Formats: sequence, C-alpha cells, structure tokens
Amino acid sequence: MSEVKAYGAKASDADLEQLNIKRRTPLATDVHIEIDYCGVCHSDIHQVRNDWKNSKYPVIPGHEIIGHVVAVGSEVTKFKTGQQVGVGCMVDSCQNCEACDEGLEQFCENGMTATYNGKDKHLGGHTFGGYSEEIVVDEKFVLNVPDNLDIKAVPPLLCAGITTWSPLRQWNVQKGDKVGVVGLGGLGHMGIKFARALGAQVVMITTSPEKSEDAEKLGADEVLISKDDKQMKEHANSFDFILNTVPVGHDVNPYLNLLKRDKTMVLVGAIEPLKGVNGGALIVKRKRLAGSLIGGIEETQEMLDFCGEHNIVSDVEMIDIQTINTAYERVVNSDVKYRFVIDMQSLKK
Amino acid sequence: MSEVKAYGAKASDADLEQLNIKRRTPLATDVHIEIDYCGVCHSDIHQVRNDWKNSKYPVIPGHEIIGHVVAVGSEVTKFKTGQQVGVGCMVDSCQNCEACDEGLEQFCENGMTATYNGKDKHLGGHTFGGYSEEIVVDEKFVLNVPDNLDIKAVPPLLCAGITTWSPLRQWNVQKGDKVGVVGLGGLGHMGIKFARALGAQVVMITTSPEKSEDAEKLGADEVLISKDDKQMKEHANSFDFILNTVPVGHDVNPYLNLLKRDKTMVLVGAIEPLKGVNGGALIVKRKRLAGSLIGGIEETQEMLDFCGEHNIVSDVEMIDIQTINTAYERVVNSDVKYRFVIDMQSLKK
Repeated sequence: MSEVKAYGAKASDADLEQLNIKRRTPLATDVHIEIDYCGVCHSDIHQVRNDWKNSKYPVIPGHEIIGHVVAVGSEVTKFKTGQQVGVGCMVDSCQNCEACDEGLEQFCENGMTATYNGKDKHLGGHTFGGYSEEIVVDEKFVLNVPDNLDIKAVPPLLCAGITTWSPLRQWNVQKGDKVGVVGLGGLGHMGIKFARALGAQVVMITTSPEKSEDAEKLGADEVLISKDDKQMKEHANSFDFILNTVPVGHDVNPYLNLLKRDKTMVLVGAIEPLKGVNGGALIVKRKRLAGSLIGGIEETQEMLDFCGEHNIVSDVEMIDIQTINTAYERVVNSDVKYRFVIDMQSLKK
Repeated sequence: MSEVKAYGAKASDADLEQLNIKRRTPLATDVHIEIDYCGVCHSDIHQVRNDWKNSKYPVIPGHEIIGHVVAVGSEVTKFKTGQQVGVGCMVDSCQNCEACDEGLEQFCENGMTATYNGKDKHLGGHTFGGYSEEIVVDEKFVLNVPDNLDIKAVPPLLCAGITTWSPLRQWNVQKGDKVGVVGLGGLGHMGIKFARALGAQVVMITTSPEKSEDAEKLGADEVLISKDDKQMKEHANSFDFILNTVPVGHDVNPYLNLLKRDKTMVLVGAIEPLKGVNGGALIVKRKRLAGSLIGGIEETQEMLDFCGEHNIVSDVEMIDIQTINTAYERVVNSDVKYRFVIDMQSLKK
C-alpha cells in the first residue's frame, strides 16, 4: 500500500461510492471549504504506508489545508464566503472535558477527531483529509489566515508550524534566550524562524555541516555541529531551551549536556525509544526532558496571527498531486526544502 | 578498599598525622561541633569503595551529621555553644555566583565543597566527613535543628530528607495532589512522609508486595504494585507528580504512563543510563522527566523547620561505629528500615 492513486477529476460519485466515501451535508455550524493547497507531512506517509498499524483505507491524507470558504452554515459567525482559511490536524473534539476547556483540543479526553484517519462522528467510518477538492469542518476547527501571507507557503504552518510554536510558547522562550533547534527539516526550519522572531539567540544544532548556510539564511545566529566534540563542549550548560525535532529515536544526552541548570529540552518528533537517557544528566543540574504535541486551536490561531505580523511562512516546493509518490520518496530521503505543498488545482488536470 | 578501619578513640594525633589529616583552627565565622550522630548514606559506600572513581583516601565518610556546638568564632551570629545543630552534604561554596545567589549552593558554579571528599579550601587536600568526633564548619552551612525532634532520628533528614523535600517543593506539590513515590528505601520513606504531611494523596509504587504494610504505616494512602499490569493500567494518566527514588538505571516508561498530561516525574536516585525512554510517552501528553539534587541551605533549613512543625523524623536503626562494615553490607542488600545512624559515642569504646 505504498502507492497513492491520484483520482483527480476522475473521482466520480461512483468512485466515491465504491470507496465508501460519503459527502457530508454541511450542518448549521459547518464551514464548507474548497481546498487550494495542502502540505505534505511525514505522517501522511506513515499513515499511507500503515507504519503505525492504525491506518484505515482508503486513506486520504493531508492535514495542512488551505482553502477558501464556499459556504457557511446558518450559525457560523466567524467565517464568510470567500474568506481564506486553514484546517490543521484536528477537525473536532468533545468540547466538554478539562483539556478542551483549556483550549488543548489535541489532548481531548474523549479523543479529538484527526483530520484524516480519525473517527468520523457525523458520517461514521473515518475522516478524509486535505488531498482533496473540498472539506466540511465545524467552524471551531477552522482557522483564519492573515491576508498578507504568501498563501502557497502557509499550509505547513498548520502542522510543522504549530508543532514548533507551541513548545516555544509553553516554555516561555523570551527575547535574548539562547535557543537550540536540533534537526533541520520541516519542523526545524519553522523552529528557527519562530525562535528568531521571538527575539532569541538561535543556534541550529545539526550533524551536517552542509546545512550551515541554509540554517543561517533561515535565521540561525550560529550553527553547532553536534559531531564536533570541541564545539559541543564549548556550548555545554549554556542553552535556555532546546527544541528537538529529530523524528526518530536517538541519543539525547549530548543535547541535554548543552542545557543550563533548570532548563528544558522538548521533543516534538521522536516518538520512538531514546537511547539510554543519562539519569545523572537530569539530576546533576535539574535538567528537564519533555514532549509537546501540535497545539490547540486558539494557540494555532495565535501562531498564524504572529506569522501575519512577522511575515513568516514556510519554505516550500510546490507539486502537482500526480507527483505525490515521488514527493513521498523525497520526503523519506530528506530531500526537500522544507515542505512539499500540493497545488490542488492539479486534481483537475 | 571495601573495609573501613574504625579508629575510634585510638585515632591519636600521631594516627592523624600519619594519615595527613589536619585539624582546622576555627575561623571567626566557624562553628565547632562535637558530633553526636551520623547517618549512613549509600553514597558513603560508593565513596569508600571508589565506585565513582573519584575517591580520595583516606575517606572519612558521613554527611548526615547531628551534633552540638562546643565553640563559635567571634563573628558567628546564628549559633551558640550547646545548641543542637546539623551539617548536611555541603560545608562551603563560593557564595558569589548565580546559583549561590539563588540559595542553590549545591549547584555552585565554582563548585560547592562536599562535606567529605571535597576540595578543602582551608587546609588543602580533601574534606573529612561525619564519622568523626568533631567537625568545624562555616556558620552558613550549619543548620538549626528543632528541639522537639527525636535527635537520633534526625541525621538522615540532612541528605535523604532534603533530597526528597526539594523536588516536592520545586514542583509545587499541593494538598490533594495524587503523588507517587517509586521505591521504598532511605529516600522513598522520607518521600512518603513529606508528601503526606503536605496533604497529598500518597501512592507508594513498588515492585515488592511485601512492602505494602510498611508503606501504609509510613503514611501511604495506597500501594501500587508496579509488576501488576492491571493495577498499573487502572492508575494510568492519574498522577500529579511522581518522585522516583530508584537508585539505579531502570525502565521509567511504566511510571511515565502513570502521569497526567503536563505532569512531571523527578529522578533523585538513578544517575545511570535509563532504559530506552519512550519519546512518545513524553510527547503524547506533554509529560516531563526531570532530576533533582539534594537542596540548598535555605531549603534544608525550611525542611527541618517543617519537620519540627509536623514532628517528622526518619525511621532509623542505631549502630556503633564498630559494626559499620556489616551495616554497609546490609545497606547494599536493602536490609535496613530505613537508615542506619551511627552513635558517635561508640568512637570512644
């Protein structure tokens, strides 16, 4: 199941019926969106390939969705036809638990509804994502996108953006803080941009010296090559915060050594077991290892508004849906700067 | 070097000279203490046996010291002759760095002076600890001991006590919080007492069902057997704080699973590498793994005062110095409830 069939304009009603994909009749609180662009997230690939053993087929991936409103339900107050909007990783939650009350729908105690491959409360079956012509979403999960941004480069903000924004805000990164960003990919490149815009002294921490030039272009004040013991020693106990975007299990001890006393490294990528975390590294200077998962809707809107104010977008490479399988291979090989975005007009080709 | 020679009263001036142990002439800011009791900490054994490869011989261990003041220097203001006092893990620090300014002398950026096996600023060589008749310490590192406490059971407060008190305070454990204490030994038994006295709902988490009765006597509201998958599942995502006192590398993932979202487990014992910490466990509910190391002098005094108010002491077994080697074996075999305390009068036998 590693091939994606691009139905495009050929996805007739009969095709959809055969695939058991139903169209949702918009409710009074729904926003009907025609999708213009959709980002390609690594988790799309994991789901398509059933890497996490929880995929439901057919998978229609995509949770970095940008489009325009074509219709709104009678009770919708925040959006109007023609407005430029976004949809991220979630399309629903219970709205009635401690997490939802705190604006942390991603931690909904009754289970948030993922944009695709989530449990569809309305139609039964599972949800379908943004590699599509249209989507219907409750207005609570629709985001306003500032008009001044280059819209083609906005989709990744809805996943890579909020994933890196949220920990920087949770841990209160301030002007002048020395912030490390480990790993330069879709997440890392956003981490650099945000930390820089927040006024931090940003150090890109990477195994690859060849990434230095790009890191500096993206806003890093300095590049620290983690394979260079001398450099690592010079930076020991000097960081106020480290954002670790490495997407696989790895040895975090060299990075923990970089933190000041009482400071934190937050993981946003590595959901796998980490190599023997050194308990002593945490104890001796009361360091902290934490995690963070995307962000709530309110926080996502805050991030988009911040991007509007600071003119921040992602670095993207535009593709047509017809080349999605090649794009997936390139994502797996880290051969993209830094996110693919699908032009959804290509579905009509 | 696993045998300790108990010099006792036989340590003549000639013995000391042969061992290159000098007596410090008290300075104006010094407190001269006759030692009554000294607790036996596991780290005493590590140092005596050079487990950490940094021991300097001769080692005179002991950093859980209780005694009475026999003389004070001319500038000493806080102590007077006859007063009951304590000395913990540190006898000096630079008093002139960010950590010292914050009252966190244990993290002194110029290196705190450990009570034994530390670098002696006054006499050169290294410091000697509390398995001794007397000690001379700057008043800043001398602690007042509330009169109402059973003094024989106070020494372990100065290491095991502050080590467990500090993280409970740092992480702001409150009345009604569900607090787990992992491991029932010298540290764990103090963790239970403190968490209980702070008004928490205390759950002892242990691999050993036979420890249940003792845990409840010490103040645990409940005992959770960590080998019992069903029990562990029932308690998943329910703890506000976990104090992990396990002294060796171990699998922390089952304990991380017990934490609520955004909550923290603090390590105070395991300075070794931990088995593959599951990054996903930290990311999915923004959990935190942190460390803590003893506590500052001000915090130690706060802890002793709290013990005075709540009549908290350690559970101890008294020994004479002559049985110290047997006691060490028993500590290594976890065969003590929960701390040995040496009656220093036995030095005169």
